[in-house]
Amino acid sequence: MDKTLIFGHKNPDTDTICSALAYADLKKKLGVNAEPARLGAVSKETQYALDHFGVQAPALIETVGTDIKDVILVDHNEFQQSVENIKDVRIAEVIDHHRIANFETREPLFFRVEPVGCTATILNKMYKENGVAVSKEIAGLLVSAIISDSLLLKSPTCTKEDIEAAYELAEIAGVNLETYGLKMLQAGADLSDKSVTDLLTMDAKEFAMGDAKVEIAQVNAVDTKEIYKFQDDIDTEIAQLIKDKNLDLFLFVVTDILNNDSVVLALGEGKGKVEQAFNVSLDENNRALLKGVVSRKKQIVTALTDAFTQ
Amino acid sequence: MDKTLIFGHKNPDTDTICSALAYADLKKKLGVNAEPARLGAVSKETQYALDHFGVQAPALIETVGTDIKDVILVDHNEFQQSVENIKDVRIAEVIDHHRIANFETREPLFFRVEPVGCTATILNKMYKENGVAVSKEIAGLLVSAIISDSLLLKSPTCTKEDIEAAYELAEIAGVNLETYGLKMLQAGADLSDKSVTDLLTMDAKEFAMGDAKVEIAQVNAVDTKEIYKFQDDIDTEIAQLIKDKNLDLFLFVVTDILNNDSVVLALGEGKGKVEQAFNVSLDENNRALLKGVVSRKKQIVTALTDAFTQ
Repeated sequence: MDKTLIFGHKNPDTDTICSALAYADLKKKLGVNAEPARLGAVSKETQYALDHFGVQAPALIETVGTDIKDVILVDHNEFQQSVENIKDVRIAEVIDHHRIANFETREPLFFRVEPVGCTATILNKMYKENGVAVSKEIAGLLVSAIISDSLLLKSPTCTKEDIEAAYELAEIAGVNLETYGLKMLQAGADLSDKSVTDLLTMDAKEFAMGDAKVEIAQVNAVDTKEIYKFQDDIDTEIAQLIKDKNLDLFLFVVTDILNNDSVVLALGEGKGKVEQAFNVSLDENNRALLKGVVSRKKQIVTALTDAFTQ
Repeated sequence: MDKTLIFGHKNPDTDTICSALAYADLKKKLGVNAEPARLGAVSKETQYALDHFGVQAPALIETVGTDIKDVILVDHNEFQQSVENIKDVRIAEVIDHHRIANFETREPLFFRVEPVGCTATILNKMYKENGVAVSKEIAGLLVSAIISDSLLLKSPTCTKEDIEAAYELAEIAGVNLETYGLKMLQAGADLSDKSVTDLLTMDAKEFAMGDAKVEIAQVNAVDTKEIYKFQDDIDTEIAQLIKDKNLDLFLFVVTDILNNDSVVLALGEGKGKVEQAFNVSLDENNRALLKGVVSRKKQIVTALTDAFTQ
């Protein structure tokens, strides 16, 4: 029987891994020979969720094999975020919650994108639409994905639908949303084995803002002070990155998962734009507390882009 | 209250017009200040459906006004098929059944594409999902759209879902699917007021096939012989088009809506490829009957592309 491979984006996060596992489960129950896969290493946060619910991580792939008939993309649609040979495979479906860009097919397909905070929220609806019950394990994976993408329902990307799905799934999974969620986020925020290079690269994205080139790296932490103990090393490494990549600004965002604030470190010629964008003053260490700011996409990139393009 | 404009593609067909009207009706019933629009003239076929169910055509627009908050695209997603200023407006939703290409947004949106034969089939599902009853008039518009896109359920693009929706909607609309459908198609196939230029341009599309440049024009007719009465004039005009556009092949497809066959006329250096693609011989008038061929997209372009690229 022809096999359908289901996977999320590169540098997989909890939503990408859990949505691939859950949608493969739903598809199998609907009679499709589906198999989940992943395009990168499993994070500590995701591993905590998998261990808690006794589920194995999907197999790691680098390219889609020639034995595969169809692929299904979850949690992404932009080709540069997908598997290397994405242009050579037949995409049967896309289930996602991001903007649409750099996506093209020769034939019509099943494409479902909704402006919610998490792919898992859409999948929870799809179980219902297909009249398939969500098992305890799958409910655990789906609620973990929502907790991760919404920073325990605190992110401005989180919608009413995400919140309702999270409480409903937590009950099926047999966990208390707050206590389980915090433990999972804390597992992901354990940065004790990370080098300074790891911290600055594990979740870094580059953006063009007007004529400026801006890189923003983000990590979640339980105690932001722990990270900034190493500020001298961090400063040195960022200075090198600015020089190598010819950046106007490097913004290092350490997000406090307990208080839902971020302490940012801004370096580069454009650091004044951070003060302007968030109406704060950088201290003598080039740091500032951004109250209530947790989302790079919705709170940081937008405000900084405005500051650079005004 | 902010207004949301709903429209389909340029050179509107029955699915595009009826889907804009139907989705505006559903949205209004869900509390959205929605208004349908169209980007071009109403065809005779569409006008027959509108008249039969006593519904007015949506207003004609050329660009989206500055008073509009959001737009919703139905029956298309490629920007070159949409309104001129599509890049300047906020797209809130897309409901479609075509391939995805040349589409991009800054933010996540609600995007639903399914591989069915007609947008109206998806809209019929959406009424159900939202628990809103389909009125007699809207059922009439939706079934008309399915009849049009599927050539009365005969096209290879037509799926089981389209067939089921068509029978269900015909009952609500109080029409017999076959008799009403044939009358509507016949109204569209009334070419008595069309010039030869009209016939060759009203539904013509250009394709790159390997190194060859191929143009394929299609018209629906009740009696294909009526059209070919004017073959001398048609030949002269096609010869001019081939010269002006430097075409390798011009294929004129006259589709018999009663027998679901097409009589094609092939002119240009590449006319032998038509014989090869469909395993037929062109007669002394450069014509051939293609038994069971009605879909340009699924039956003609694919076979000709293979012949040109082998």
